[in-house]
Amino acid sequence: MKRKEDALAFRRAGREDRPVLARLVREYYAFDGLPFDAAATRAALRELLAHPEWGGAWLIASGGRTAGYVVLTPCFSLEFGREVFIDELYLRPAFRGGGLGRAALDFAARWAGHNGVAAIHVVTERNNPAARRFYRRGGFGGAHRYFMTRRLDA
Amino acid sequence: MKRKEDALAFRRAGREDRPVLARLVREYYAFDGLPFDAAATRAALRELLAHPEWGGAWLIASGGRTAGYVVLTPCFSLEFGREVFIDELYLRPAFRGGGLGRAALDFAARWAGHNGVAAIHVVTERNNPAARRFYRRGGFGGAHRYFMTRRLDA
Repeated sequence: MKRKEDALAFRRAGREDRPVLARLVREYYAFDGLPFDAAATRAALRELLAHPEWGGAWLIASGGRTAGYVVLTPCFSLEFGREVFIDELYLRPAFRGGGLGRAALDFAARWAGHNGVAAIHVVTERNNPAARRFYRRGGFGGAHRYFMTRRLDA
Repeated sequence: MKRKEDALAFRRAGREDRPVLARLVREYYAFDGLPFDAAATRAALRELLAHPEWGGAWLIASGGRTAGYVVLTPCFSLEFGREVFIDELYLRPAFRGGGLGRAALDFAARWAGHNGVAAIHVVTERNNPAARRFYRRGGFGGAHRYFMTRRLDA
């Protein structure tokens, strides 16, 4: 029998979780070599948590400890209809390799299904083949499409 | 002096425009070699036109003739905040090479700016370098990120 502390839990973050989320985002960006702007991240988290219709953030706990987070954002396309992006998914290094990543993908799929969504997208960095392998094992195909961005404020 | 018929116009599509949009989507997918499902496209157009909060479709007219269409859909990410996807952009072959594509990108940027958005994204097919060049000239960077999809209904 599993002890309660071993349980895996996804808890939707509220405004009071902003500090722990900001800390996790910082860890994630450092791990991925992405530039981290603390003020911009705080502002984006404030916006996201204030607008549930734009998506949500979930804290992932394992054995009662904070293991990571996932951010899911809904969108729409003519090709797929209602869709969901795994905007960010991060597991602290100590919590990897034990199936938590796959459980997070299953959680995202369930959440999308409950919201009538038929497709989940994720954007991976070209220099991160491990992430692509992870998502491929999780049922994600493609990677024959490029994601391009124009910043209007740059 | 430009004659009125030469003018370029972007008109937000309403429900009554569904037939012409469906025709243009079919032309676009045929041009791009994408599978076209008429019933699915009609359903997606119905959804989009009924939910302006999910985005919109605009008919592009040049000299009073239908030149193409563009679909813009808002989304949110922690990295960029509020953002907009150029979900689909199509110009009929007879209307290419005259700056209409660039004008459509500028239109998308203005619409995004009016909506407080700081980044526009577009997804291009790996086997379509011409599209990537077009978007690069239009100020889109990246293409170092892969766009992956998991269909939940497959």
